[in-house]
Amino acid sequence: MVARIVDLRSDTVTKPSEAMRAAMASAEVDDDVLGRDPSCFRLETEMAKILGKEAALFVPSGTMANLISVLVHCDIRGSEVILGDNSHIHIYENGGIATIGGVHPRTVKNNHDGTMDIDLIEAAIRDPKRHLVYPTTTLICLENTHGNSGGRCLSVEYTDKVGEVAKKHGLKLHIDGARIFNASVALDVPVDRLVQAADSVSVCLSKGVGAPVGSVIVGSNGFITKARRLRKTLGGGMRQVGILCAAALVAVKENVPKLENDHKKARLLADGLNEIKGLRVDTSTVETNIIYVEIEEDSRTTAAKLCKDLEEDYGILLMPMGSSRLRIVFHHQISASDVQYALSCFQQAVNGVRNQNGN
Amino acid sequence: MVARIVDLRSDTVTKPSEAMRAAMASAEVDDDVLGRDPSCFRLETEMAKILGKEAALFVPSGTMANLISVLVHCDIRGSEVILGDNSHIHIYENGGIATIGGVHPRTVKNNHDGTMDIDLIEAAIRDPKRHLVYPTTTLICLENTHGNSGGRCLSVEYTDKVGEVAKKHGLKLHIDGARIFNASVALDVPVDRLVQAADSVSVCLSKGVGAPVGSVIVGSNGFITKARRLRKTLGGGMRQVGILCAAALVAVKENVPKLENDHKKARLLADGLNEIKGLRVDTSTVETNIIYVEIEEDSRTTAAKLCKDLEEDYGILLMPMGSSRLRIVFHHQISASDVQYALSCFQQAVNGVRNQNGN
Amino acid sequence: MVARIVDLRSDTVTKPSEAMRAAMASAEVDDDVLGRDPSCFRLETEMAKILGKEAALFVPSGTMANLISVLVHCDIRGSEVILGDNSHIHIYENGGIATIGGVHPRTVKNNHDGTMDIDLIEAAIRDPKRHLVYPTTTLICLENTHGNSGGRCLSVEYTDKVGEVAKKHGLKLHIDGARIFNASVALDVPVDRLVQAADSVSVCLSKGVGAPVGSVIVGSNGFITKARRLRKTLGGGMRQVGILCAAALVAVKENVPKLENDHKKARLLADGLNEIKGLRVDTSTVETNIIYVEIEEDSRTTAAKLCKDLEEDYGILLMPMGSSRLRIVFHHQISASDVQYALSCFQQAVNGVRNQNGN
Amino acid sequence: MVARIVDLRSDTVTKPSEAMRAAMASAEVDDDVLGRDPSCFRLETEMAKILGKEAALFVPSGTMANLISVLVHCDIRGSEVILGDNSHIHIYENGGIATIGGVHPRTVKNNHDGTMDIDLIEAAIRDPKRHLVYPTTTLICLENTHGNSGGRCLSVEYTDKVGEVAKKHGLKLHIDGARIFNASVALDVPVDRLVQAADSVSVCLSKGVGAPVGSVIVGSNGFITKARRLRKTLGGGMRQVGILCAAALVAVKENVPKLENDHKKARLLADGLNEIKGLRVDTSTVETNIIYVEIEEDSRTTAAKLCKDLEEDYGILLMPMGSSRLRIVFHHQISASDVQYALSCFQQAVNGVRNQNGN
Repeated sequence: MVARIVDLRSDTVTKPSEAMRAAMASAEVDDDVLGRDPSCFRLETEMAKILGKEAALFVPSGTMANLISVLVHCDIRGSEVILGDNSHIHIYENGGIATIGGVHPRTVKNNHDGTMDIDLIEAAIRDPKRHLVYPTTTLICLENTHGNSGGRCLSVEYTDKVGEVAKKHGLKLHIDGARIFNASVALDVPVDRLVQAADSVSVCLSKGVGAPVGSVIVGSNGFITKARRLRKTLGGGMRQVGILCAAALVAVKENVPKLENDHKKARLLADGLNEIKGLRVDTSTVETNIIYVEIEEDSRTTAAKLCKDLEEDYGILLMPMGSSRLRIVFHHQISASDVQYALSCFQQAVNGVRNQNGN
Repeated sequence: MVARIVDLRSDTVTKPSEAMRAAMASAEVDDDVLGRDPSCFRLETEMAKILGKEAALFVPSGTMANLISVLVHCDIRGSEVILGDNSHIHIYENGGIATIGGVHPRTVKNNHDGTMDIDLIEAAIRDPKRHLVYPTTTLICLENTHGNSGGRCLSVEYTDKVGEVAKKHGLKLHIDGARIFNASVALDVPVDRLVQAADSVSVCLSKGVGAPVGSVIVGSNGFITKARRLRKTLGGGMRQVGILCAAALVAVKENVPKLENDHKKARLLADGLNEIKGLRVDTSTVETNIIYVEIEEDSRTTAAKLCKDLEEDYGILLMPMGSSRLRIVFHHQISASDVQYALSCFQQAVNGVRNQNGN
Repeated sequence: MVARIVDLRSDTVTKPSEAMRAAMASAEVDDDVLGRDPSCFRLETEMAKILGKEAALFVPSGTMANLISVLVHCDIRGSEVILGDNSHIHIYENGGIATIGGVHPRTVKNNHDGTMDIDLIEAAIRDPKRHLVYPTTTLICLENTHGNSGGRCLSVEYTDKVGEVAKKHGLKLHIDGARIFNASVALDVPVDRLVQAADSVSVCLSKGVGAPVGSVIVGSNGFITKARRLRKTLGGGMRQVGILCAAALVAVKENVPKLENDHKKARLLADGLNEIKGLRVDTSTVETNIIYVEIEEDSRTTAAKLCKDLEEDYGILLMPMGSSRLRIVFHHQISASDVQYALSCFQQAVNGVRNQNGN
Repeated sequence: MVARIVDLRSDTVTKPSEAMRAAMASAEVDDDVLGRDPSCFRLETEMAKILGKEAALFVPSGTMANLISVLVHCDIRGSEVILGDNSHIHIYENGGIATIGGVHPRTVKNNHDGTMDIDLIEAAIRDPKRHLVYPTTTLICLENTHGNSGGRCLSVEYTDKVGEVAKKHGLKLHIDGARIFNASVALDVPVDRLVQAADSVSVCLSKGVGAPVGSVIVGSNGFITKARRLRKTLGGGMRQVGILCAAALVAVKENVPKLENDHKKARLLADGLNEIKGLRVDTSTVETNIIYVEIEEDSRTTAAKLCKDLEEDYGILLMPMGSSRLRIVFHHQISASDVQYALSCFQQAVNGVRNQNGN
């Protein structure tokens, strides 16, 4: 047992603040399935405004936000979606768009910065004249920030360009914006401008934003009407959900302004880790709150072992990603002192291993 | 605008009590997707124990509870489920088991008491020898209490008999137990005994139990492991969900003992309404907390009109069910005085209409 | 081993005639996937004309014809189809519309004459205002002649009325017309008039029509374009398929005019069987080429036993339908002499049994 | 109008030979849905033997053969299949495995020779421990010969290695062997040996084999039992299908021995075309019966234009594949003289264009 816990596994691990707990304890609520819950209505209205879209819908998770978005755009049997081969939807959402929705995924290679080459996207669009053998390309999905690329940001120029391609071919554009606020802050572009080209955006409230539960989907009124229905079908309609929405409203106000600090601390730790012999961080890729740490071959430890050591000996929680890679994610409950502590623990843990093996 | 509101639309409309709000404000929580949230774990453990099954899973809604249950039992393509033609799953859940899960429904006529004749159930089971043209019968679903039959209870003897049929044919039995506590109380049978024959049960926490959000599914360990995965696929995995579970734990303790009172008040109102000229209630069917009121033909009003009048003039909220039928649902936030008030309002509203038309 | 075989199991068992074989041997063919096979084109053109619709599509089977028809009409996720609870699609097609297409079936009771009550159909149509919990009613399916009702005919008046209901509610009407020519002949109504109200019709060519393989779907040009694509998706697109179509063209000409004789022979046999002690046929229901024979309780045999005896001792092939019911189906390869032979075999088989048991 | 037609669009365009037509005209047939058609049974038995598997199933098309194979292996909701990003199943079959079967495709890059790197295949296999977010890898698909790679052959060593990977991870291996006989002949490896590592193989009878219609699937008895059922669900069960099977049996005997000639002629034409200024063929890739012709940039024509010219002026039918690429496919009805004719037509058409543009 260790006294201090520094949980760097994900930005989903934050605990609700006092203000959020107070908000939940006093939230005005009603049955959001029979009618509308007032706190939920307030959150949805606020989020639609922030993201610059007509309407919003609160859902229990980011996975449901993406699932609903893809399925509403692809509501006709035989639809195909173009998305990154390293995107969250393709890799970490159980293949739900196909197994639940019957939507055929067509992947395009994700570059190291999370983009897909525009010409590859265009080449992946099916020729509607060959509809006898081709599915119907209906949707393009982007992910901003792009998680598996280490939280890197898609620029507004890139996003606009993909939007133009979509428009030109009569396709819809969905942005998996689980961490879109991180991108907005890092790029210093207003978040509504950043998603302007998109027909729909999913935004996670329980990642950097720090709410206990939930995501929102934003889009046109017509899109959200269909999304609301599909949410019911999937079982995502909740009763006095204002409890959660009240917390989320506080979270947006409290934590979005702190995201810049998360990024700074992430860079600080990244720089420090990169100087530890046996570890390597491509610091140029640390644009937001995620760090990927490579464990060098001659370090004689593995991701699994290092994670275990850091957890058991120092209370540092991390996620191994394959055999020689770790993921670190920052959030507002990681302090500057946690960064220093983590750095020294890493140093000792890696040295410990090296000494052990060296002797 | 009216001063007093008596909301009899559904038992889903209750507001969280002070104790629930306090529990939410102080709930111990953690990320229930990466690991387990302690408050959620406590609720799931408690519910499994109460229902007498190995394990439980918290989900955002009763619709998801049923959807997951049916889909986990019917996880092989080509499965068919036998269920009531007037069941909640068949009528009110968007056809999700087919449209989302590809499961083929085979309906059996629901009797007025919510049962399906045992011999009709057996006749609906497909002969596996004719598998070239038949889907594979995999599951039988019961609903207890049966909502569209006015909240009537399936006895433990009936349930056991259906369980035997299921076992004999190698089928699973799922109970949509959204209001299973109402049945347990009305029948005076322990709830675990009442669902003993079932392989899985969905239980709503936001109906009579009065929690703000959520349902649980209970079943074997193996079943719940699969259900947990499918919950993630559907997007029902939530992060610091202990907030909601802490409230639900309080709700179970606070409100389950009050269900008997709900039933008493329901019978009281039913008796009173039946004496109003122009209305008719089959009081013998009011076994739990639901009343169906028939508007007689010569009353010269309609369900829609009467609901509107009661809402606008008296603050009584109800649900019209078709043109000459109303549904009233009791919950712990309806007092004895509300019953008297409602009764006199009905009297006036119906008389008002009759006088109006009579002159 | 018996010398004479009289195959009354189904009208699908006929062997191709000399003229059909000659047509296949000389059929002009081409690749019907890359372009159009000329013999297939000829058949499709002819069938569209006969059925009075814009276009037609040849498919490998009646099951695919119905599957494609339902799925094309219900191409948006969340669609529901209204169909008879005793219809071929619901009972004998593996639940494919749900398991393959995700379409939710809503059944209405089939009367003994194969109809569904018009008011029950209308009551089954979902109120679009309650789209949050209801699937979207999209399609009504009829079956003419209705197989499980003993090949009874839906009148043109009835069909037109259902068509009006469909139109009124913005729904499509599909007719499973596997044996629509039998209905047309029995009702003495031109087949195009009989299906006038339908948006699509599936017609079997390998039942009474006597072709070796295939069905056609007819409908509007737009419908058939979508159907052609879905046929490819399901794997029903075939290359030099003109072989089969050439046979079917001959079959339509050769055998449709003979259907009236099939019906006459069926009535003859029905009348004869009804006079055999121990058997009962409701001869008033024998409108076309199907006979259901009830085995009376005191006959001391079963459907399975009688079928076995008739097959092994006399070469009469039949289908048992449950424990006390047999199905007999006529086709053009059953002669008047076969009817007499079958009648005497039945007499002996039933008597044999009765004597055996009587002694 | 041109007198001579040389159809090089595909090997699916062949017309049935006299012997096939005679076989169809005299085929012994029966209802293959109610029981077994004898000619179909003979073909299935023969194909199972040739391919070295327990059982076989005749289906209307290669698309259905692959669809059934993938869906039977992936019969549990949440399954994922690993397949080439340039494979026929992924590119040309309407996305049916997802849109019809709900199977999630995970693509691996196809190399120019049609293989996928073994280590990339292994990396694409999902870790079952992360089943909460990952679909379940269930199946690997290979394609031999690989059409989009120009008909190149996967060696028996490569296939065996992939089979070992599959076995090691508890996965199934399916081979899309639409042109497996071409591979067997080109590699000089018995076809049963070539597919020994596979759990199922689809083989097209209407490509190089030259039958008018159909494919077969081969695999274990248990697999084929499930496949037969799914064939019925999809509507691929056909009645007196022996007509087609009788032709296919003749085709196998007549045309498989001629495949080697197809390959020789293909190489001859490839060599010739490569010498035409403005065209380029990578002759080293012409291993079987397919040629991809690149139109060089300075040739001032396009694939579409050249195809049109060759068709209209010379009766040479080809398929454009994108803007600067043509596909040529050989089959037994292309003679040595056709090769010479085609070569001279190409010469004239390309020159004609060049002269036109050059002046």
